[in-house]
Amino acid sequence: MALMNGQQYIESLRKLNIKVYMFGELVENPVDHPMIRPSINSVAMTYELAHAAEHEDLMTATSHLSGEKVNRFTHLHQSTDDLRKKVKMQRLLGQKTASCFQRCVGMDAFNAVFSTTFEIDKKHGTKYHENFTKYMHFVQENDLTIDGAMTDPKGDRSLSPSQQPDPDLFLHVVEQRADGIVVRGAKAHQTGAVNSHEHLIMPTIAMREDDKAYAVSFAIPSDAEGILMIYGRQSCDTRRLEEDADLDLGNKQFGGQEALVVFNDVFIPNDRIFLNGETEFAGMLVERFAGYHRQSYGGCKVGVGDVLIGAASVAAEYNGADKASHVKDKLIEMTHLNETLYCCGIACSSEGYPTEAGNYQIDLLLANICKQNVTRFPYEIARLAEDIAGGLMVTMPSAKDFKHPEIGPLCEKYFKGINKVPTEQRMRILRLIENLTLGTAAVGYRTESMHGAGSPQAQRIMIARQSNLQHKKDLAKKIAGIDK
Amino acid sequence: MALMNGQQYIESLRKLNIKVYMFGELVENPVDHPMIRPSINSVAMTYELAHAAEHEDLMTATSHLSGEKVNRFTHLHQSTDDLRKKVKMQRLLGQKTASCFQRCVGMDAFNAVFSTTFEIDKKHGTKYHENFTKYMHFVQENDLTIDGAMTDPKGDRSLSPSQQPDPDLFLHVVEQRADGIVVRGAKAHQTGAVNSHEHLIMPTIAMREDDKAYAVSFAIPSDAEGILMIYGRQSCDTRRLEEDADLDLGNKQFGGQEALVVFNDVFIPNDRIFLNGETEFAGMLVERFAGYHRQSYGGCKVGVGDVLIGAASVAAEYNGADKASHVKDKLIEMTHLNETLYCCGIACSSEGYPTEAGNYQIDLLLANICKQNVTRFPYEIARLAEDIAGGLMVTMPSAKDFKHPEIGPLCEKYFKGINKVPTEQRMRILRLIENLTLGTAAVGYRTESMHGAGSPQAQRIMIARQSNLQHKKDLAKKIAGIDK
Amino acid sequence: MALMNGQQYIESLRKLNIKVYMFGELVENPVDHPMIRPSINSVAMTYELAHAAEHEDLMTATSHLSGEKVNRFTHLHQSTDDLRKKVKMQRLLGQKTASCFQRCVGMDAFNAVFSTTFEIDKKHGTKYHENFTKYMHFVQENDLTIDGAMTDPKGDRSLSPSQQPDPDLFLHVVEQRADGIVVRGAKAHQTGAVNSHEHLIMPTIAMREDDKAYAVSFAIPSDAEGILMIYGRQSCDTRRLEEDADLDLGNKQFGGQEALVVFNDVFIPNDRIFLNGETEFAGMLVERFAGYHRQSYGGCKVGVGDVLIGAASVAAEYNGADKASHVKDKLIEMTHLNETLYCCGIACSSEGYPTEAGNYQIDLLLANICKQNVTRFPYEIARLAEDIAGGLMVTMPSAKDFKHPEIGPLCEKYFKGINKVPTEQRMRILRLIENLTLGTAAVGYRTESMHGAGSPQAQRIMIARQSNLQHKKDLAKKIAGIDK
Amino acid sequence: MALMNGQQYIESLRKLNIKVYMFGELVENPVDHPMIRPSINSVAMTYELAHAAEHEDLMTATSHLSGEKVNRFTHLHQSTDDLRKKVKMQRLLGQKTASCFQRCVGMDAFNAVFSTTFEIDKKHGTKYHENFTKYMHFVQENDLTIDGAMTDPKGDRSLSPSQQPDPDLFLHVVEQRADGIVVRGAKAHQTGAVNSHEHLIMPTIAMREDDKAYAVSFAIPSDAEGILMIYGRQSCDTRRLEEDADLDLGNKQFGGQEALVVFNDVFIPNDRIFLNGETEFAGMLVERFAGYHRQSYGGCKVGVGDVLIGAASVAAEYNGADKASHVKDKLIEMTHLNETLYCCGIACSSEGYPTEAGNYQIDLLLANICKQNVTRFPYEIARLAEDIAGGLMVTMPSAKDFKHPEIGPLCEKYFKGINKVPTEQRMRILRLIENLTLGTAAVGYRTESMHGAGSPQAQRIMIARQSNLQHKKDLAKKIAGIDK
Repeated sequence: MALMNGQQYIESLRKLNIKVYMFGELVENPVDHPMIRPSINSVAMTYELAHAAEHEDLMTATSHLSGEKVNRFTHLHQSTDDLRKKVKMQRLLGQKTASCFQRCVGMDAFNAVFSTTFEIDKKHGTKYHENFTKYMHFVQENDLTIDGAMTDPKGDRSLSPSQQPDPDLFLHVVEQRADGIVVRGAKAHQTGAVNSHEHLIMPTIAMREDDKAYAVSFAIPSDAEGILMIYGRQSCDTRRLEEDADLDLGNKQFGGQEALVVFNDVFIPNDRIFLNGETEFAGMLVERFAGYHRQSYGGCKVGVGDVLIGAASVAAEYNGADKASHVKDKLIEMTHLNETLYCCGIACSSEGYPTEAGNYQIDLLLANICKQNVTRFPYEIARLAEDIAGGLMVTMPSAKDFKHPEIGPLCEKYFKGINKVPTEQRMRILRLIENLTLGTAAVGYRTESMHGAGSPQAQRIMIARQSNLQHKKDLAKKIAGIDK
Repeated sequence: MALMNGQQYIESLRKLNIKVYMFGELVENPVDHPMIRPSINSVAMTYELAHAAEHEDLMTATSHLSGEKVNRFTHLHQSTDDLRKKVKMQRLLGQKTASCFQRCVGMDAFNAVFSTTFEIDKKHGTKYHENFTKYMHFVQENDLTIDGAMTDPKGDRSLSPSQQPDPDLFLHVVEQRADGIVVRGAKAHQTGAVNSHEHLIMPTIAMREDDKAYAVSFAIPSDAEGILMIYGRQSCDTRRLEEDADLDLGNKQFGGQEALVVFNDVFIPNDRIFLNGETEFAGMLVERFAGYHRQSYGGCKVGVGDVLIGAASVAAEYNGADKASHVKDKLIEMTHLNETLYCCGIACSSEGYPTEAGNYQIDLLLANICKQNVTRFPYEIARLAEDIAGGLMVTMPSAKDFKHPEIGPLCEKYFKGINKVPTEQRMRILRLIENLTLGTAAVGYRTESMHGAGSPQAQRIMIARQSNLQHKKDLAKKIAGIDK
Repeated sequence: MALMNGQQYIESLRKLNIKVYMFGELVENPVDHPMIRPSINSVAMTYELAHAAEHEDLMTATSHLSGEKVNRFTHLHQSTDDLRKKVKMQRLLGQKTASCFQRCVGMDAFNAVFSTTFEIDKKHGTKYHENFTKYMHFVQENDLTIDGAMTDPKGDRSLSPSQQPDPDLFLHVVEQRADGIVVRGAKAHQTGAVNSHEHLIMPTIAMREDDKAYAVSFAIPSDAEGILMIYGRQSCDTRRLEEDADLDLGNKQFGGQEALVVFNDVFIPNDRIFLNGETEFAGMLVERFAGYHRQSYGGCKVGVGDVLIGAASVAAEYNGADKASHVKDKLIEMTHLNETLYCCGIACSSEGYPTEAGNYQIDLLLANICKQNVTRFPYEIARLAEDIAGGLMVTMPSAKDFKHPEIGPLCEKYFKGINKVPTEQRMRILRLIENLTLGTAAVGYRTESMHGAGSPQAQRIMIARQSNLQHKKDLAKKIAGIDK
Repeated sequence: MALMNGQQYIESLRKLNIKVYMFGELVENPVDHPMIRPSINSVAMTYELAHAAEHEDLMTATSHLSGEKVNRFTHLHQSTDDLRKKVKMQRLLGQKTASCFQRCVGMDAFNAVFSTTFEIDKKHGTKYHENFTKYMHFVQENDLTIDGAMTDPKGDRSLSPSQQPDPDLFLHVVEQRADGIVVRGAKAHQTGAVNSHEHLIMPTIAMREDDKAYAVSFAIPSDAEGILMIYGRQSCDTRRLEEDADLDLGNKQFGGQEALVVFNDVFIPNDRIFLNGETEFAGMLVERFAGYHRQSYGGCKVGVGDVLIGAASVAAEYNGADKASHVKDKLIEMTHLNETLYCCGIACSSEGYPTEAGNYQIDLLLANICKQNVTRFPYEIARLAEDIAGGLMVTMPSAKDFKHPEIGPLCEKYFKGINKVPTEQRMRILRLIENLTLGTAAVGYRTESMHGAGSPQAQRIMIARQSNLQHKKDLAKKIAGIDK
């Protein structure tokens, strides 16, 4: 089957019969819902660009399973070059959508499950890797978008899965059957869930023997019996429901979203199970997925950063302030921070290595360094963008005021910047900055940068673990002339 | 006349016949408009607390004009003690409203105009100070809220007022009459305009002889002929229009707002004019107002910061994460940054000095230091709050979902934190953090911290000017043994 | 007795018979030792300026004990105005010496011991306050410099005093006699010890019942039987021993120093004892001394910062780079950070309050905020100074090379900056920057800023304790609509 | 000829007859001079490790000129893999020497001159590339250390070379002869000059037609007629001259150094000239050399950072504080910053590309990002190290005190940390931290990080130039819906 284009992807979603709730109601037609559609458009861009000749090298790859050309989002990385291209593809998509394009979680889950199942089978003689390899054939052939789902609701953070008062606060197996398993629980903060063909479920933390029922990984169609989603409400979400709000949106076409995916006793057939009780591999799976996903942020957020830097630069020009040395210096600082993130994304890719299963894993230490910087620099880039934009970003009136016969001309007159630029253009660029720093895309650019792929402290724990402090202590003692 | 309480203030607004446009329509009843009312409630708190015995010392003062007890927001500062109390009053109100309470601009304008008019009169033999002193009697007696309005639209930032293609991009006198003047133009980013009884207009920059018509200061009722306001639209503004959105608001009762105030050939009678063409005093007026207002941020934003620190701490507790050392350390860091701002607010007050007119001015250098820190630390405090809050802040569903018969219980179940706290409470505290970091109050806590009372570069210019670098160079040369 | 001047102070030191070891030898004549003398000169400046009419208001005060004029360094603060003047006096001395002037520890100890002994006596009926008041009469009358000594060697930081393998790692009473006590142990990091007439000893941490013998405070002459000092070696210390090194010193006249003070079974007569076993007051004494001393850093380091900013500015001028916008901006940033420290010093003073004993205590929270910033900003100021200075600061040859017949002229030629400034002047200013960022004064400006008056973590613990987090949580719940 | 080992390198230096002045005297025997020898030891390590089997892959390469195995420091990079290995080699050497090992400037100069001469010849038909290729054969065969020299004294920074009052403040051609040229001037801040077999001279800035005489590049033996060097004096330099100072040195064996290299009318034969008047290529040569050298800092300083992190960790252990959560967190932060630098070094290497001459150039934008971070993070790493170390680092007595019969045991007793570690070891590790933050190595780790390979502003200018802001503006306009 050929690679889908954007339109085909959108049509493919129509065939799904997903249950998603928003504002207390079941959404009739998610694909055309004005709040959801921008997120779908972002994913669609991952399909669309795969057909652009100038992006083919980044957007597609040759499957090592089938030898066919596949969308890189379904690819199992075969080299450090693949890992670097992944990051560059993500930067490209960040530039094109200025938002989260949601398809990375699946790609990152594929690569983590692929290598981990290989090692589970080797130890336990299970068939998870065979199951998963078949599944990957299916995904690649059908060019699917998969929601790689890890984070459980977690309840009381100070308690392990099996210690929670409500056993369902981590997703778990409630019944082992001959033909499969039945699972219950939920996955929270699922960015691409509503726009995905399937969910690929993974455990969310390393586990002990007690948590056996929670050590489970599997794949399941988004509209399987027992699954429902509850849509998260975010900053400025309903502006998209307003009539003629175009000017107020900042980014009319693209967006991101979040949902809770609930599993109400969902049946999973045996050939879709990739982990089932081998608790000692939960940690490996988490670590590998998190590693890939922390790498991802060194691409996607850099692309969004490019747009924000560009927007700030345009705003400065429209304000007549682009020649001011402090403005130029702030743009340099924004660029410096943004490219530092990119360096981290590239470096953890270049330092990747083959797993036992053959696909390539990123350098874990550097990927955690990457994400840790992502929890800081986008905030500073956003702060500098707000500085350059000026206060008008949050004091301009609505699009409707611009259309009013009496008020409209006053808006035109008094919100004008440099003479040659129409006021509307100035408004558009300021609304884009608002969108990225306070509005719908700020959720992706700021909060997701903070917590996506694990909160900052998770990276710090990994950095401590990976830093080989003993080696550094030995180096220091050698230099200091301390014998032991 | 006695001090008004909150309710009396609200009633007093009903008597005004202001013209304010929002979403392309004239607002019929601004006082009860669900988007405007929270801002009015914030201002009302400045009246209400003046009647609370425990806050009397901060909230009220004895007028040096009348000897009567007045609300401190209408007071002309008589000592450094007054200046410090001003800051403490502002911190208190930030704590009580978690938003901008809008009445400071008037207070800061009073004190700047009072001392500047004294010096203009001394040089030019004008009667501006007499005019203004009478005006202050009127303000104090009637316990008014005044919009101290400085910022013009400015158009092309690289051009002076008289160089702009459109002469109205800075407010100016279009007609000098025997009984007064006629003015045209607008004031942008007017935070408290819609909730004020009057506007007190000041020029926005130092001026040269060419800009004579732009060097103008006066007071005028909000509903005077020729004045209209256009309401700014902000992040999450329309959530307040939703039915039953209480849970989604974060801060149900209080808020801030911004508006453009347009002056379409408005007549100003002679006794309400405080500057009219004495260009060399425009800079002094700007510098003094900005100085006071930069001090203000060392109080109000600290109070809002207190709420955000508290909210993060509550969220950590509800997440079961409040014992984690990294969480405790982040709360310390937030406190450290917040109190550093407070130190700056207090210090520039303690180092205040009497003007020729007798009221007290803050230390200009330290007030600019204060504001410069305010353009940075609230962003970092907000970032740390988002870190502690966790991703749920931006993935939780709407209040309506919680009320749905099937979805509601799932929300209750899966968004629960520690067992003893109802899910609704967790949602409330996370929505408050969202409100302060991304939502309606983020405009006040972040963007206003950046640009209110002048953008960061304005402070840096003042710091350079006030830093007495030559004295420091002399100190260094002395120590280094350089004779000259 | 009149206030001493600098020369009289120096002569007074000659009368002491202190034992100080340096480089493995007993120093014969400490007063004239080229490594020690600059430190003495710094202290002497505290005497000298007390006689300068223009500094009288800051440098002197009226004793509330005797009604006489005393050097402010021996004063018990009687008002918040006194507290602010203390900070200003310290800034002045930092400006004049560009180093640590060492006399603050005594002043801060006086004020802490004075108020704490009052409260001990009130509870225990002891006579410590009477003892100490007499002692203060003696100090003021004789205008003494006292080493306020707190920090013990501490050994293993994870163990309490009485748990240490060696009981002497915290100073303690080894014998209780009818006429006094005998003490053993040491005080480390004693900045002004070698230049002081007496030591005023305090415990270093809060203590439990087990540590009774360690809860001791007393005063004793520097040359008492059983006391010896070991001089600490610091960066670039021996440059002062070089002949004709003037040009290489950066700061020829002033400096700071550190020493270990050892107490080998020293007898303390009863009337010089201020705490002896009342363990529950050890914490109060530590907290109060640390509070005052954390305030101090908001003055002294700001003064040194003024010199460093000035030096960077001169260096930029000599480099021909003072018009570059990035250089000007860095000087603004240095000033901004330096004045932020000053704000903290002023604020914790302004918010001071009377103790039960009548002298004034600073605001503890804000003093800890002050010091916490001091552990950060001087490092950034130093970094920016190094940036502006340029690499020549660490690549210039020695003074001796400038005097060589062949090499000297080459040095003159190739190290010249702008034409009108002699090369020697350029060298002098760069050596001053070296002195403050890497050399002898860097120890005071950087490391002492870090650890003096307690290491950063000590302040964070105090900030946590003083921040009233519960009040902030209540504020947040109120706003969020959470009832309990 | 075989690769030299460390000892052979040292012996090879003895054969040179260089003229180096220090403290106003010609140094008789530089190789054995106690202040110079540690720097020679650092360079020697670059030879020694080339013979270690476990480091062969990093330390050596196959010359594309001769097909022979060469020390990587003389290699012309043939792939991005070579570029990455270069960075890893530098990190390794930083770990082994904890100082600047000086040989990088030559390697970076080789690669820049090689590719630039190719392009000059292509345009001008000159023979510089042939000259230089021959020279590289010579360098590789003899395994030489070359001082790649760029920075001129510069005089007044606001003037171009030909505008300086003294024409020699930039090195220039004073005579064009048939057989070569005669040059005059100097190169400042020459790190490895004293330990190098030859100097490879390059211009220091882009030039205009007026500066034709200044556009010159050539190679010359270190002891050629007319060359002399003046040794820079640095923090703590003379400690190395003290007897038995071992314990006080921190790093006994290794060090860095700086010198001014003066060219008093030095003759350069034709076959050693690589640029002579082609002003338009001066900028390219500077940019390429600076690019390589900015990459280098992403390796060498990371290695030194490893030692400092290790030292801080050891110090914490010896203090009994290694279990404290704030200490662990600071070590994580230091690691995070250090690895971020490494990411930048790796990334600009991975993104390298072949020049027209065939050798590989790094990514210019990312190399500048790398260096810009190096001007910041080592300072923060150093600050955190000082925090963890504690104040004892600057208050401990000298080694001699430890050997005194009476004082020695007191030092042992009172400077002891945890019981099982000898006091001497604690002293050693603290002295190492002093060495890296304030002492001889601080010059390399801090000041050189700031100014080496160009001061911060030089990188910012390059970042601005390389950032393609127009592309970012276009991206933003597309998203915002702005047509043009």
